[in-house]
Amino acid sequence: KGRQTGGMPSSRHVVAQTTVDSSELAERLATDAVERRLAACVQITPVTSVYRWKDGVQREAEFLLSLKTTASQVRGLRAFLEQEHPYDEPEFLVLPVIEGSDSYLRWIDESTGTS
Amino acid sequence: KGRQTGGMPSSRHVVAQTTVDSSELAERLATDAVERRLAACVQITPVTSVYRWKDGVQREAEFLLSLKTTASQVRGLRAFLEQEHPYDEPEFLVLPVIEGSDSYLRWIDESTGTS
Amino acid sequence: KGRQTGGMPSSRHVVAQTTVDSSELAERLATDAVERRLAACVQITPVTSVYRWKDGVQREAEFLLSLKTTASQVRGLRAFLEQEHPYDEPEFLVLPVIEGSDSYLRWIDESTGTS
Repeated sequence: KGRQTGGMPSSRHVVAQTTVDSSELAERLATDAVERRLAACVQITPVTSVYRWKDGVQREAEFLLSLKTTASQVRGLRAFLEQEHPYDEPEFLVLPVIEGSDSYLRWIDESTGTS
Repeated sequence: KGRQTGGMPSSRHVVAQTTVDSSELAERLATDAVERRLAACVQITPVTSVYRWKDGVQREAEFLLSLKTTASQVRGLRAFLEQEHPYDEPEFLVLPVIEGSDSYLRWIDESTGTS
Repeated sequence: KGRQTGGMPSSRHVVAQTTVDSSELAERLATDAVERRLAACVQITPVTSVYRWKDGVQREAEFLLSLKTTASQVRGLRAFLEQEHPYDEPEFLVLPVIEGSDSYLRWIDESTGTS
């Protein structure tokens, strides 16, 4: 279901991103994702989104979720968001992590049940 | 004009970043970039910036623009920002996207006129 | 001490991330990192963090630091944060930059003393 976007080798740890339009929903999705071990940690940031929709430009207050997880959890995380996310076309982007401290990366692995 | 910063293959979708010092300017640049199809979506985040300038350390309230676009629009986006951005030395950084949902990546392609 | 997280070639410029639980500490760490030339620029964003800790899910207001620097400063930056950061298990993640404007990347090089 997911699409690779280039020839770049994937990294073992990643930051996945999505947005929602309420802080309550942002916190609920974040809590559920962490409880299901689909992410070790989620940071929620209030943003103003400007985007193209049906030939016009829209402006909306949103909440960006940055989910720290492992590459092996991305498929499950995407399936979870496709199920739970209320938008027709939710954002789902994955950014690579190239390095980190040993202990923090190990904590991500343990928190997501990735050995 | 742009510089590659490593040996890493580029990805087909990217997140470009710049900062400005007012929310009005942030929204104007975001709207113009989306109208010109240089980005599909822009998220604006209020940040505190701390940076080196002329041998001292400065602190300033700024607004970070994260522009979701395709690699093929990066050159045009950079030219647009070099023209419109009021700073002498604006931030312009591009982060790779390694994966995303099919439909969201397709929406980025369509919104930027990238086939 | 640091761990590479995949087979991806590293980029010459990077965005490093950590979080702290007070804005005062965020600004102090940011200022110190810039003064020591471990980063050219730091953006501080208030976030809500949701994460796994000791079998439960925690929620906390935090401040995300995004440090723009060169790959060659990452080791020193990590050592600085391991020394100064008050958490047992601080976040330390490094995201690659694949492109930027010539002059902004040169400014990062000069501000960090990287030739």
